[in-house]
Amino acid sequence: MTTPESQPVPSTATSHPLRILITGSAGFVGSHLVERFLNEGHTVIGVDNYISGQVSNTDLFRDHPRFTFIEADVSHGIPYTGDKLDWVMHFASPASPPHYQQFPVETLMVGAQGTQNGLELAHAHGAGFFLASTSEVYGDPHVHPQPETYWGNVNPIGVRSCYDEAKRYAEAITMAYHRSRGVNTRIIRIFNTYGPRMRPDDGRVITNFVHQALRGEPLTVYGDGSQTRSFQYIDDLVEGISRLMMVKYHEPVNLGNPDEFTMLELVKNIERLVQVSLNYTLSPLPLDDPRQRRPDINIASTKLSWRPTMSLNDGLSIIILQYKNPTK
Amino acid sequence: MTTPESQPVPSTATSHPLRILITGSAGFVGSHLVERFLNEGHTVIGVDNYISGQVSNTDLFRDHPRFTFIEADVSHGIPYTGDKLDWVMHFASPASPPHYQQFPVETLMVGAQGTQNGLELAHAHGAGFFLASTSEVYGDPHVHPQPETYWGNVNPIGVRSCYDEAKRYAEAITMAYHRSRGVNTRIIRIFNTYGPRMRPDDGRVITNFVHQALRGEPLTVYGDGSQTRSFQYIDDLVEGISRLMMVKYHEPVNLGNPDEFTMLELVKNIERLVQVSLNYTLSPLPLDDPRQRRPDINIASTKLSWRPTMSLNDGLSIIILQYKNPTK
Repeated sequence: MTTPESQPVPSTATSHPLRILITGSAGFVGSHLVERFLNEGHTVIGVDNYISGQVSNTDLFRDHPRFTFIEADVSHGIPYTGDKLDWVMHFASPASPPHYQQFPVETLMVGAQGTQNGLELAHAHGAGFFLASTSEVYGDPHVHPQPETYWGNVNPIGVRSCYDEAKRYAEAITMAYHRSRGVNTRIIRIFNTYGPRMRPDDGRVITNFVHQALRGEPLTVYGDGSQTRSFQYIDDLVEGISRLMMVKYHEPVNLGNPDEFTMLELVKNIERLVQVSLNYTLSPLPLDDPRQRRPDINIASTKLSWRPTMSLNDGLSIIILQYKNPTK
Repeated sequence: MTTPESQPVPSTATSHPLRILITGSAGFVGSHLVERFLNEGHTVIGVDNYISGQVSNTDLFRDHPRFTFIEADVSHGIPYTGDKLDWVMHFASPASPPHYQQFPVETLMVGAQGTQNGLELAHAHGAGFFLASTSEVYGDPHVHPQPETYWGNVNPIGVRSCYDEAKRYAEAITMAYHRSRGVNTRIIRIFNTYGPRMRPDDGRVITNFVHQALRGEPLTVYGDGSQTRSFQYIDDLVEGISRLMMVKYHEPVNLGNPDEFTMLELVKNIERLVQVSLNYTLSPLPLDDPRQRRPDINIASTKLSWRPTMSLNDGLSIIILQYKNPTK
């Protein structure tokens, strides 16, 4: 039995310099990966079409000598012609319900053609392929918390299926390339994650609540507020990704924070931090919205000696500060 | 309450002549659709790349004045440049586990790119789009029998996921084109179907059993033979498809025979018909093989006044006769 304390932790921080192509580099998670890998001395090629990514996230690194950027829709091909890649990391996709429901066909395509284009590029370069999948593959789960062995409860024809089924397909084709073409693949299932550089109009609950609180508006709570989510700070996710790259494990790995909160508990947390009494209004639950979601992180804990270290309070404090002072 | 007896049944048999493009026209189901539509006076364009279809199924209609054939892989585009289509019917895909597991990436592609190419063609022609989905979207079901509202229990990363997830994706993108681009879509979930023109190496249980029985070999029974399936004769399926084309209903419709048999009961049925005492050997259950499968056909019954009319005994008699006398 290995424990986080007893074994050295391999990660990209201690790796020789790598050449890493990241699709969705101008997105929330993608931009944090770019930052981490550049800081560690790696070379990064970012690719994005700005369907949901932000130009400001590219601008952050535009002058960095080891960063290059390709504006492209990876569903139609990844026009990379440079030196041999070590990794292709596929993080491109609209990811919040309002965004992917606005672009259902594009979301389906980036999960299918986009993933396959990434797999083909990785195969051609003998590179690793890293898929950003999602806890949404579990749908509205009947098993709680969700281990990676749970097959999920997803409505294949619902309004969320353009995202959920695209990601399930992305996992299936990643496993197919691994099994039948020997590509060195990784799959993570990302649970709710928050942090700096989320789009203000992201539409997910932490962004919504913090912005409403800071504007002095009542918070919009869906359903009766008893549904639960677990919230992971972006740095914890990036650390898990970095470790998984260095471990040969090809089945999906949950990366998320198992601390679970109801929506009303989240309101209370934010209320404490902004030190203002908050009102909220109740709205109907969106269609097929999951009632609860919490990762079983035994595999990440065992294989990667990983667990989240940022508490919700500390993470919220950071983003509240950032939203109050956006230029800092 | 409508009953099959009390209402007129719209179907393609009574329609004005249509121009219908069928992908997978050289496959088992596809070839029966071609035959039916030609017999009804329609014009048919068949498309197949023979990855699992058979040239002999194209040869059946090659000289027909209202049949044309395009050899193409629809995952890379449908090179049709003819007159305005009324229907694009997407029936291309490897469909038996040995075939799709031999071609996992191609199976995934025909579910994603193939379906999308069909939807785009239908959209361009203002045609209807008809998707052949499958009972496999229910996976190893926890609900029995399976109504269309059941979300399924599918392993997204298993060896069958190249087929199951491709079809779930195909349903999702079909609904996305219907909702966001107004395409006039249909989705059927086909349960186990058998009949003349199945490939002898199809690998599914009825073909396997009948061929083994006729060769005097012991029948290969997987597991302990207690798992169940329901078997639909091809003509019943084709009748259901024809009726659904004439009814505006865009959600998935189960088409299958609700009479359920264990594998050992199937052995006994065949034994009676071939009038030879049959031996069988037990083999381990394939990975992720569903334990049971039976359609709830309330929607087809209500919306289409449809129910299967061919008994298993009569259907088996037909194919046993055909296999004994393949030239007839």
